[in-house]
Amino acid sequence: MGGHGAGAALRASSVGSFAEWVLRGIGQVFLQNNPLTGALFLLGISLSSWVAGVFAVIGTVCATGTAMLLGVPRDSLARGLFGFNGTLTAIDLTFYLRHDWHLLAFVVLASAASSVLTATLQNFLNSNHVPSLTAAFVATTWLFLAGLKQFANLSGSRTAVIRAHLPHEATPTAASLHPQDLLTGFFNGFAEVLLQSGVWAGIVILLGILVNSRISAAAAAVGSLVGFGTAWVLGFPVQVMAGGLSGYNSVLTLIALGGLYYLLSIRSALFAVFGGILSVVVSGALATVLAPVGLPIVTAPFVVTTWICLFAASSLTGLRPIHPDDAGTPEHNLQHAGRTWDSTEPHRFGT
Amino acid sequence: MGGHGAGAALRASSVGSFAEWVLRGIGQVFLQNNPLTGALFLLGISLSSWVAGVFAVIGTVCATGTAMLLGVPRDSLARGLFGFNGTLTAIDLTFYLRHDWHLLAFVVLASAASSVLTATLQNFLNSNHVPSLTAAFVATTWLFLAGLKQFANLSGSRTAVIRAHLPHEATPTAASLHPQDLLTGFFNGFAEVLLQSGVWAGIVILLGILVNSRISAAAAAVGSLVGFGTAWVLGFPVQVMAGGLSGYNSVLTLIALGGLYYLLSIRSALFAVFGGILSVVVSGALATVLAPVGLPIVTAPFVVTTWICLFAASSLTGLRPIHPDDAGTPEHNLQHAGRTWDSTEPHRFGT
Amino acid sequence: MGGHGAGAALRASSVGSFAEWVLRGIGQVFLQNNPLTGALFLLGISLSSWVAGVFAVIGTVCATGTAMLLGVPRDSLARGLFGFNGTLTAIDLTFYLRHDWHLLAFVVLASAASSVLTATLQNFLNSNHVPSLTAAFVATTWLFLAGLKQFANLSGSRTAVIRAHLPHEATPTAASLHPQDLLTGFFNGFAEVLLQSGVWAGIVILLGILVNSRISAAAAAVGSLVGFGTAWVLGFPVQVMAGGLSGYNSVLTLIALGGLYYLLSIRSALFAVFGGILSVVVSGALATVLAPVGLPIVTAPFVVTTWICLFAASSLTGLRPIHPDDAGTPEHNLQHAGRTWDSTEPHRFGT
Repeated sequence: MGGHGAGAALRASSVGSFAEWVLRGIGQVFLQNNPLTGALFLLGISLSSWVAGVFAVIGTVCATGTAMLLGVPRDSLARGLFGFNGTLTAIDLTFYLRHDWHLLAFVVLASAASSVLTATLQNFLNSNHVPSLTAAFVATTWLFLAGLKQFANLSGSRTAVIRAHLPHEATPTAASLHPQDLLTGFFNGFAEVLLQSGVWAGIVILLGILVNSRISAAAAAVGSLVGFGTAWVLGFPVQVMAGGLSGYNSVLTLIALGGLYYLLSIRSALFAVFGGILSVVVSGALATVLAPVGLPIVTAPFVVTTWICLFAASSLTGLRPIHPDDAGTPEHNLQHAGRTWDSTEPHRFGT
Repeated sequence: MGGHGAGAALRASSVGSFAEWVLRGIGQVFLQNNPLTGALFLLGISLSSWVAGVFAVIGTVCATGTAMLLGVPRDSLARGLFGFNGTLTAIDLTFYLRHDWHLLAFVVLASAASSVLTATLQNFLNSNHVPSLTAAFVATTWLFLAGLKQFANLSGSRTAVIRAHLPHEATPTAASLHPQDLLTGFFNGFAEVLLQSGVWAGIVILLGILVNSRISAAAAAVGSLVGFGTAWVLGFPVQVMAGGLSGYNSVLTLIALGGLYYLLSIRSALFAVFGGILSVVVSGALATVLAPVGLPIVTAPFVVTTWICLFAASSLTGLRPIHPDDAGTPEHNLQHAGRTWDSTEPHRFGT
Repeated sequence: MGGHGAGAALRASSVGSFAEWVLRGIGQVFLQNNPLTGALFLLGISLSSWVAGVFAVIGTVCATGTAMLLGVPRDSLARGLFGFNGTLTAIDLTFYLRHDWHLLAFVVLASAASSVLTATLQNFLNSNHVPSLTAAFVATTWLFLAGLKQFANLSGSRTAVIRAHLPHEATPTAASLHPQDLLTGFFNGFAEVLLQSGVWAGIVILLGILVNSRISAAAAAVGSLVGFGTAWVLGFPVQVMAGGLSGYNSVLTLIALGGLYYLLSIRSALFAVFGGILSVVVSGALATVLAPVGLPIVTAPFVVTTWICLFAASSLTGLRPIHPDDAGTPEHNLQHAGRTWDSTEPHRFGT
């Protein structure tokens, strides 16, 4: 996508531009290219944890800055596509290390790595017209957390540890579900995408999606409910469901499949719901597979499920896929539905 | 491959067509596009377990039906390419859940997922001209079995469990090999592809291959012997060998490499035998790797080995690869050997 | 790359040609296409262990021979591209089996497999213009070592065993670092690429790189230091660092990124150093991930890190990537820098 050198990218940006790219980057965590959305997400994070808010900014800034230095195409930068993996990586690492300079150094290095990995994965998937989603965040986080176990000099800084263990068959727990579990679980489903929790955080985050796209906000809401419902049928522990931990992957999957990478229709909406259910099955599968190495599933279920559903696109002639470069909000996609959609020429995203 | 909508696909099929697609789907478990073959396989399965026979039909029907609803190309459907992963997934799940409505629901969902995954993997591999084989069955089964460990509400239904454990070095057992072990092992090698056992089941299944292609039947027989022999040299437990569990991956590998995806020649036959030996090594390796997560190897050794041997194709100028869309029986391929084989235009499969 | 049959390849080579291909193959372990380099590497190996030297030759000969029989393109053979994975596979297996005929049979089979896997991986990566590096060695070794755990008949021959275990958080050790640890660690960093140790072995190996390319020798030296330094900061055990086990992946990464697959510049040099640091993080991560299956990390950290840094190439417009077929020594690449580098026409490598 063009060959602007790093020099040109640096000259063209002012601090104001850069700040806008960072906010769009935060917005892209939920696949929303909108600086106001990003600002609301930042507010939502800070309501839950001000430290996470600070590191969210640090991570996005480092990732975007690294991308600039390496000379990535300017419009990917401007759309925030090199920010959001840094946002998530930085927030996630704050849970595992004491909040001191070790964490800061680790976060700077990891956010930089997440930008290289974003470029890597995007190029690897390019010919398939499939977006890399949050795969760079997943890969970077697993890399750094798996490595962390071996880094003895950081042992004093470790605060949380996922003990490697052999996966065993879960049995039903006695705890019963209360109505407020559905309420907290519903809103935590949005907050947990940014690794936060809290009903108010969730409300602000949902609002952030809403200011950019009503269809995506509706898709997110359906996603949170589908995730909660599927987990309830399968028998996930109540605290997991109430904590939104069975919802956040489904939220992202419904946003991606609900009008963003497939043109919205009855058929694609049903397929998106199927995707949400599948994301919960994938969450369970990944929890089992990652148990012996003590790694968290983060947003891998969302990435795996959405890739499965997008790679299938050219065979599923009942659905209309949208090239990642053309994909705007679901509303924008529907407006342009009259044009040819098999075109591989990237459209500029108009705001 | 064409753009027929789901509507057209539904109208064009009558119950008779659909039933034929389902039988061809069952036949494709052994890469045989032939409804009589599929019917014989179904008989073979039922000789071993009538429940497995019922679920084989349910799985193939759900997978084919899902593929129709999603609008996959009609000739892939007609060749049974969207059935066989559902066949295997359904049969496999019957071993892990009590035979009640939970199993039925799980099987319907998993067979539907296997169709989406078949489309996914086929598209991912398309540019490499490599078929996806039973990879969708492997992926779907691992997904659902790994997830099953986490689904507490299904714990009451679990009948068999593969306990996650750390792999340890195997030591030779005292048991010695008897001549009838070779006999049962030989025929079980065919039956175990469909997760069944029994000499009569194996005979009927081999007959099913034979009615479609004599070369493939010979390849299957060589495969079962190569698998048994390699396992004996390496020191697999006798009950594993007699149970055909060291033969079934080699059976499928020899069929795939023995005249189907490479034109049959002395050289490709030797390469196919090498593939069969390699599939036993891969079986051992996968058993080690999957031990800590408690998952079965199913047909993954066949898929991995055959992909290794097919991806190498364009460098191995001593062999003549056949594009998956052109591949008929080995006899058919030899007949058409005079034409240009580097052509990427799909031939219609003539019966 | 051309269609020379195996017959033509065999006729054209004399014993002398074949010997040269084998020596170039050994040289390619460090990405150096030079028979004198390969001879010096062989001397370095033999200084450390004459058995390893013998098996290095056996492995390279088997791999190259298998490649010839299968008919791989003649100039890949002549550049040693089908030798080095056999070299490494053979040496690595000598650590795990008693030095008897079982080991010889295993090595012959594994080296042959490594050639097939080299073709496989090279074709899979071809469209991305990314070299397969030592991935075939990694895959073959993991395959055979993981399988070895299951092969009871080889249990009497097993000499070393990596016990599968759950990874746990490392804590700092009391041991302190002495100046000679840096000296031994520095030179062991080169030797350990060939799975050897010893200061003299390391010196001879470094000399081997130097006779082919001064820039690659400098990159290797920087790599060994970067690996040692990063491991020291992160707190690896002293014996690991002094043994060169934290340096060898960084050595290979710096050679690959330092002027070989990216045109040498200040920017690419810094990127190469970042790659070296990342390779140490990846080493830690892989050690964690492989612990439950009891497999060694071998050169996987080098492969993963370099792939990450190369796949990112088309987005990182600040760096100039070099097509694997064009890549000569860094000096050669700089000389030809005037020509168009996006050209996908392979240059002949001039010596």
